[in-house]
Amino acid sequence: MQKLDLLALVPPSPDPFDLEFDKPREECGVFGIYSPLPQNLAWLTYLGIFSLQHRGQEAAGMCVANDTQFLVEKDLGLVTQVFDDTMLERLGIDDARVAIGHVRYSTTGSNLRFNAQPMNVRSNKGILGLAHNGNFVNAREIRNLMLEEGTIFNTTNDTEVMLNRIARYSRLNLVDATSRVMLEMRGGFAVVLMSKDMLLGLRDPNGVRPLVIGQRDDGAWVFASEPVALKAVDATFVRDVLPGELVWADKTGLHSLQVAHGQPTPCAFEWIYFARADSYLDGVDVHESRIRMGEQLALEHPVDADIVVPVPDSGIGAAIGYARASGIPFDYGLHKNPYAGRSFIAPNQDARALKVKMKLAPTSAVRGKRVVLVDDSIVRGTTSSLIVNLLFEAGATEVHFRVSSPPITNPCFYGIDTAARKELVASHKSLEEIRELIGANSLAFISERGIREAVGGPGLCLACFNGQYPAGVPLENDVDKFALEI
Amino acid sequence: MQKLDLLALVPPSPDPFDLEFDKPREECGVFGIYSPLPQNLAWLTYLGIFSLQHRGQEAAGMCVANDTQFLVEKDLGLVTQVFDDTMLERLGIDDARVAIGHVRYSTTGSNLRFNAQPMNVRSNKGILGLAHNGNFVNAREIRNLMLEEGTIFNTTNDTEVMLNRIARYSRLNLVDATSRVMLEMRGGFAVVLMSKDMLLGLRDPNGVRPLVIGQRDDGAWVFASEPVALKAVDATFVRDVLPGELVWADKTGLHSLQVAHGQPTPCAFEWIYFARADSYLDGVDVHESRIRMGEQLALEHPVDADIVVPVPDSGIGAAIGYARASGIPFDYGLHKNPYAGRSFIAPNQDARALKVKMKLAPTSAVRGKRVVLVDDSIVRGTTSSLIVNLLFEAGATEVHFRVSSPPITNPCFYGIDTAARKELVASHKSLEEIRELIGANSLAFISERGIREAVGGPGLCLACFNGQYPAGVPLENDVDKFALEI
Amino acid sequence: MQKLDLLALVPPSPDPFDLEFDKPREECGVFGIYSPLPQNLAWLTYLGIFSLQHRGQEAAGMCVANDTQFLVEKDLGLVTQVFDDTMLERLGIDDARVAIGHVRYSTTGSNLRFNAQPMNVRSNKGILGLAHNGNFVNAREIRNLMLEEGTIFNTTNDTEVMLNRIARYSRLNLVDATSRVMLEMRGGFAVVLMSKDMLLGLRDPNGVRPLVIGQRDDGAWVFASEPVALKAVDATFVRDVLPGELVWADKTGLHSLQVAHGQPTPCAFEWIYFARADSYLDGVDVHESRIRMGEQLALEHPVDADIVVPVPDSGIGAAIGYARASGIPFDYGLHKNPYAGRSFIAPNQDARALKVKMKLAPTSAVRGKRVVLVDDSIVRGTTSSLIVNLLFEAGATEVHFRVSSPPITNPCFYGIDTAARKELVASHKSLEEIRELIGANSLAFISERGIREAVGGPGLCLACFNGQYPAGVPLENDVDKFALEI
Amino acid sequence: MQKLDLLALVPPSPDPFDLEFDKPREECGVFGIYSPLPQNLAWLTYLGIFSLQHRGQEAAGMCVANDTQFLVEKDLGLVTQVFDDTMLERLGIDDARVAIGHVRYSTTGSNLRFNAQPMNVRSNKGILGLAHNGNFVNAREIRNLMLEEGTIFNTTNDTEVMLNRIARYSRLNLVDATSRVMLEMRGGFAVVLMSKDMLLGLRDPNGVRPLVIGQRDDGAWVFASEPVALKAVDATFVRDVLPGELVWADKTGLHSLQVAHGQPTPCAFEWIYFARADSYLDGVDVHESRIRMGEQLALEHPVDADIVVPVPDSGIGAAIGYARASGIPFDYGLHKNPYAGRSFIAPNQDARALKVKMKLAPTSAVRGKRVVLVDDSIVRGTTSSLIVNLLFEAGATEVHFRVSSPPITNPCFYGIDTAARKELVASHKSLEEIRELIGANSLAFISERGIREAVGGPGLCLACFNGQYPAGVPLENDVDKFALEI
Repeated sequence: MQKLDLLALVPPSPDPFDLEFDKPREECGVFGIYSPLPQNLAWLTYLGIFSLQHRGQEAAGMCVANDTQFLVEKDLGLVTQVFDDTMLERLGIDDARVAIGHVRYSTTGSNLRFNAQPMNVRSNKGILGLAHNGNFVNAREIRNLMLEEGTIFNTTNDTEVMLNRIARYSRLNLVDATSRVMLEMRGGFAVVLMSKDMLLGLRDPNGVRPLVIGQRDDGAWVFASEPVALKAVDATFVRDVLPGELVWADKTGLHSLQVAHGQPTPCAFEWIYFARADSYLDGVDVHESRIRMGEQLALEHPVDADIVVPVPDSGIGAAIGYARASGIPFDYGLHKNPYAGRSFIAPNQDARALKVKMKLAPTSAVRGKRVVLVDDSIVRGTTSSLIVNLLFEAGATEVHFRVSSPPITNPCFYGIDTAARKELVASHKSLEEIRELIGANSLAFISERGIREAVGGPGLCLACFNGQYPAGVPLENDVDKFALEI
Repeated sequence: MQKLDLLALVPPSPDPFDLEFDKPREECGVFGIYSPLPQNLAWLTYLGIFSLQHRGQEAAGMCVANDTQFLVEKDLGLVTQVFDDTMLERLGIDDARVAIGHVRYSTTGSNLRFNAQPMNVRSNKGILGLAHNGNFVNAREIRNLMLEEGTIFNTTNDTEVMLNRIARYSRLNLVDATSRVMLEMRGGFAVVLMSKDMLLGLRDPNGVRPLVIGQRDDGAWVFASEPVALKAVDATFVRDVLPGELVWADKTGLHSLQVAHGQPTPCAFEWIYFARADSYLDGVDVHESRIRMGEQLALEHPVDADIVVPVPDSGIGAAIGYARASGIPFDYGLHKNPYAGRSFIAPNQDARALKVKMKLAPTSAVRGKRVVLVDDSIVRGTTSSLIVNLLFEAGATEVHFRVSSPPITNPCFYGIDTAARKELVASHKSLEEIRELIGANSLAFISERGIREAVGGPGLCLACFNGQYPAGVPLENDVDKFALEI
Repeated sequence: MQKLDLLALVPPSPDPFDLEFDKPREECGVFGIYSPLPQNLAWLTYLGIFSLQHRGQEAAGMCVANDTQFLVEKDLGLVTQVFDDTMLERLGIDDARVAIGHVRYSTTGSNLRFNAQPMNVRSNKGILGLAHNGNFVNAREIRNLMLEEGTIFNTTNDTEVMLNRIARYSRLNLVDATSRVMLEMRGGFAVVLMSKDMLLGLRDPNGVRPLVIGQRDDGAWVFASEPVALKAVDATFVRDVLPGELVWADKTGLHSLQVAHGQPTPCAFEWIYFARADSYLDGVDVHESRIRMGEQLALEHPVDADIVVPVPDSGIGAAIGYARASGIPFDYGLHKNPYAGRSFIAPNQDARALKVKMKLAPTSAVRGKRVVLVDDSIVRGTTSSLIVNLLFEAGATEVHFRVSSPPITNPCFYGIDTAARKELVASHKSLEEIRELIGANSLAFISERGIREAVGGPGLCLACFNGQYPAGVPLENDVDKFALEI
Repeated sequence: MQKLDLLALVPPSPDPFDLEFDKPREECGVFGIYSPLPQNLAWLTYLGIFSLQHRGQEAAGMCVANDTQFLVEKDLGLVTQVFDDTMLERLGIDDARVAIGHVRYSTTGSNLRFNAQPMNVRSNKGILGLAHNGNFVNAREIRNLMLEEGTIFNTTNDTEVMLNRIARYSRLNLVDATSRVMLEMRGGFAVVLMSKDMLLGLRDPNGVRPLVIGQRDDGAWVFASEPVALKAVDATFVRDVLPGELVWADKTGLHSLQVAHGQPTPCAFEWIYFARADSYLDGVDVHESRIRMGEQLALEHPVDADIVVPVPDSGIGAAIGYARASGIPFDYGLHKNPYAGRSFIAPNQDARALKVKMKLAPTSAVRGKRVVLVDDSIVRGTTSSLIVNLLFEAGATEVHFRVSSPPITNPCFYGIDTAARKELVASHKSLEEIRELIGANSLAFISERGIREAVGGPGLCLACFNGQYPAGVPLENDVDKFALEI
């Protein structure tokens, strides 16, 4: 009933001109490293989470431990804002063995400094640090039970629920307690967890959220949300963590336990939009899958036009694929201003339209042309209509909008902020109504089958497109209430 | 074993030129308000804790609640640094009913942002906020027991232990649970605690730490460490909270429960040094008691001299008393530079000597004079010797050092940072050795009996002078280990 | 002799991971607006200079005047850093008539807060504000003469020299004095100048630096370095200012005076690299000219390969042109991380290599492929070799480097920071030596003739390629001395 | 006509709770050092201006030179805010020979970052740095003449006028040109001026503003506004600079030229209020003069009362004198909160009354007592009435206000901000009206004769009391217009 609005620093919102406002938002990236050779792990963790910055821009944190110290630093802001020279120097103990790092958007829990991760606690298993990506659909039920038993909660963060559960298995060691808790928690999640002696990583039974394993030449083991973080620290990709698997690294090496056995259904949006173009997840290359999405889209929804133009940067791969399969030339029709804006009240202007205009600028390539505009997704549709309008103003004669994901009709309960259901334009408008809204001459989405073929390999979670939630839903199917109620 | 060094922002250390470095440090000031009339309590709490700033300069915080929101803000820094316009505007909901505030030095727990108070948690009694002044001598034992049972601790703060205990009494209401916990915790402490409907205040069974009650014309009840905070919010002083008493204010008015019955032994240092000159605690006026300390000191330790000079500002009262009882003229012999310095490496200089020189400047009053120098206490003795030296350099012919507290020989376990025992100069040096160290022509301390007579009224905790701890000591009598061990 | 190192705030260097380090650096962008209708010009100027941010990232400033106030704000930092809400509110007087703005790299004069532009002075022509882009080759001679006459200089900025000269014509009005000074100063420059009643714009006799004129629907006249700034404030492009032309706007409208008659030789690098892809300068579209450069490059230097990959973002246009003319498929082979880095000491690593690795990431597109890598220029060659290496590490079998500008062999004296001559790799190494240095299988630059054909229209300044300086050189042909000597 | 409001950073106004708001404000403190032994002079200059912080709290600056570098740093803020570690490290070249420093309130010229001192310019006499305390009454006339000749002015600062004049004597060396300009400028001023080889100091012909000379053991010469700055850098007091004297230090030693011969009339307010209690100016000890002022006041205006209470800190000396001469006991009746406040809108409260209440707190000493309240001056009278009211609220039975300066009836044109004439309560109200306004039982000011006797020694400038301006007035006798008009 009450709102625990733990007021804190205003997040230095990275770019209010950001077109990503109208995209699904990944909530987090995680990184962990265990080094048999004591060394400065703050530096490596910094590089790791900097390379995962695209997965979350509202907060960053890390913790680092050697035998006698367990240091943590976290705050709202970009990695480079949170970790200035002073911070890195303090965390940069040169005999660290374990470290974890985190970048985040908030999902459940408000957008707060005090909710930033990693979370650190003292428990009967020593000091622990935990960072997670994803969402537990039954965290609220478990928290309510624990509240009744007399537990207090310092944050609104699901992470604290998981740590409380691990501590409650007071007679089990850390690995056994964690594997027990993996079976209690439901949802889509990837977690890195550390004590001063050990790094653990785990992935939900469906593998909805990604986690990969790498190793450096000096023997250090690295767990991270994407292989790009392995490259950043000169680690070689070893393999994906399996759905339902618990892995851990300690002085005796790398270990694994297959805790749960579920149907692998990784989140399709990792390939469509979230993951970096140079990533590789569950055996599928991201850039190649985007090329195939564009090719598939051209096969499913051909059109007679003069040029193919991507909405930069996420539409580039699919636009190249569309151009190749259709034979229509690719061109650089929209220039993206790389400088971040700031929020303000724009006197006498439409702030959203201004935002798009200051961020995206049509080049002369579109003048007098029939344009195929390729984007990866449509959430609310507001930005899309502004971009279409820009193209017409710049002299495009036709705009054919092609989208490399199916229409989003359902919220995600596994850690993606897709906006509430009622804001999803595809949940309540027909294709023709959306086309009219965005003002394009034609509009088409890739089919579910098309996405499955383009990504190939594994089963996929397509819940936001088709409402089939492989890892269940919260008791009350209302993500908004879920976030605020106490 | 391990050090949980939850690294955080460097505290904007208020003044490295501060002479108070070599004084006992009060750890905290607390403030709470319950208003039957909904209003902007952030503003009143700001005034309250600003007036208590002398009790703690390393962190400040407050939380404010109405029926639907529970807001908190806290950070390292002075009250005016933590609460800028933006903060006060956000906390300034105009229908608040309850608020608490806090200023602190750290005692147990490192000096951290994440350990700043008030602490806020969700529990089976709703959201709670708690701020405390003092120290629990058995917090560590209780924490260890709870760790074994599977409880996790997010901070190294004793406050979290108290909140966990209150929550464990899951079948009792907040008042009953709190009164039960009062009996479990030992030490010297004064606490304010709030839910969205109620403000509670409590004082340890010996009343070691102060807490007073006031009321505003609009009916709002105020609990605070000193009456100066009542004046700041236009509240009238009602009475002191009694040792061992639990008081609470809610929509039905002010209530009281005498939970514990101990021997009242308030901390003598409140009158000697901590409390503001215009405060009034447990029936004794602070300024008047200091005048009496000076008079007593003149009776016990007379000397033939030309002028009486206080070490500003805390020695002024006792110097006036000494001048009156001795008939030697009072003069303004040391000017105190009101501007705060900053820390740095002073090239080729003695940093401590420079610090004193930049902060205190002898006036012409001391030239050619035999000076009685009056200070409130000697902890390490380092600053004292530098001040004596300044006076001689400025032409004083004799310096007679008079101290309005007895020699400090023992650490405090009730919330005062007096330095470790081995740093206390009086714990290992004779009077003559100290005199020689500081370079004065004579040196004398007030007697314990003298302090008792000057303060009058109640019994007093004089443990730091005589080692008699009325509220017990930690299991392991080592305050340094206590602070860092986990 | 001496170094006037007017130390100031460290510039919040926007991105030390920036690949642009090894590019020629444009020094400045200018913007001015005269509005017959009094209105908030701070806001429009903000939008204008934000859209010119690519022309200078080290300082930003603006000044705004109405009949009674002449406000200025400037500092080191990006536009969005310098102009926060408070600043924009203060400058946002709602009855302004004239405003100018500026973004800069430093060229002559150190990189200082006190040297930031616009410069504001009081003179016999009232208060003046001036912002310029470019460089005067004879500023030092004029300054020395004025010093001897008894003039003092507050800054090391050429702008102050120009303002001093304008003031010296104490019997002429502002327009006449300015036109006189235009004839005295030599070099490449575009200037906007304001009094409280008038906005002036001027371009050097060769038109080396660009300046365009636009008009808003409400009648306001806008002068700016590029048409993109006109679009940002909803102004329609009217025409380029002509080489040697002085234009001014006041309450009687727009006026022009052709002060000097030179050979038009705009800087070729505006099309090659500086101007935004959606700009249009001296009658030539920037994006189209880049496509033609790529086509020309493919004709001059064909190669047998599998894909064409641009170095993002500036190489995209030429890469598309190369792909079209050669028939080799364009692909997204290098992903650019949009997040800005920060400078630090990288323990045990090659900082430059790390910088490139954190900023650019090869995608799977290059694996097993013969790659044509297209970039716009090579200055020092250091970054180029690191990029080539990244491609080979990612599995490219061959890398053929194609550059859409000729080899840079000479410094620029007209406002571009191309590095000192000895750092220019093409000034002392043969083509084969450079190819070896960067490790490509082949290397080729577009010819001077090729650039002329691609840009078409006007004559061009190609001095950095061929040493023919159309507007003369400083007396001592040494740009390094020039900057620091007094 | 126009307002040149060179908007800049908001000054971090040091303390809006400051009682000094209603005092005359000294505009500046200056410091200079010439060291034959090359050393880190930034550090010494920092100590020097920190000890002069009481003379100006709105901006601070310094410049430092060795043979090849001339570094400057200045900004709005306290010395400790402007000069953080980074700044001091950059300025801390270890082979400096000359440095000057400055703290300021603004007088003429707005309160701006760009107007902060020292000012640095390049001229035909090399690079110069200048810092001044005081005001030139004919600066505006000189500036207007120079504007007509074609000179531009970058700031609204009088300092720039002086530097322009010095440079105009292009055939004279620095010493001769400066002595010539000393004769041109009228007003009250003390100036330090440096080139890379020489430090100059000068004082106006009447010696209105102070300047003293000291020397360190290592041979370095120091010029400063007060001897306290000599002590801060371990320099021995040598003598005051004489009225109309120009002194300079270079590698050949200290030199002097008596340029002008005026009637010595140092500003009386230096002893009444501005100078630090431990200073010594023109042969008169500050603390002793204040004691004598209090004694004189007791003789002139005796009263039957119980205690003498100073308004801290500036009234302490006079209160001790009053107590001694009257035999009435001195007491600590007003405690001053040492923590700086911040400005805000106080909801539903009188902001001025709150300001005084948060800053000054009556102790129990005044309860039931007839109080003699001693303050150094009354400017507007607003603060005085609030303090009197505080004393009555705290139980004083009578309050007798005694002021150790005569009534202020005229503005100062020599560098002191006394408020405009119409704000000076004594300029338009009778003694009885002022008494009624402030609510005291009696009110009395020291006589002019009394001040002359208490300060003794030299003639005095008493213009603000009697309107006799020894160094002339501006052409238009209106200090407000003077400040803003252009």
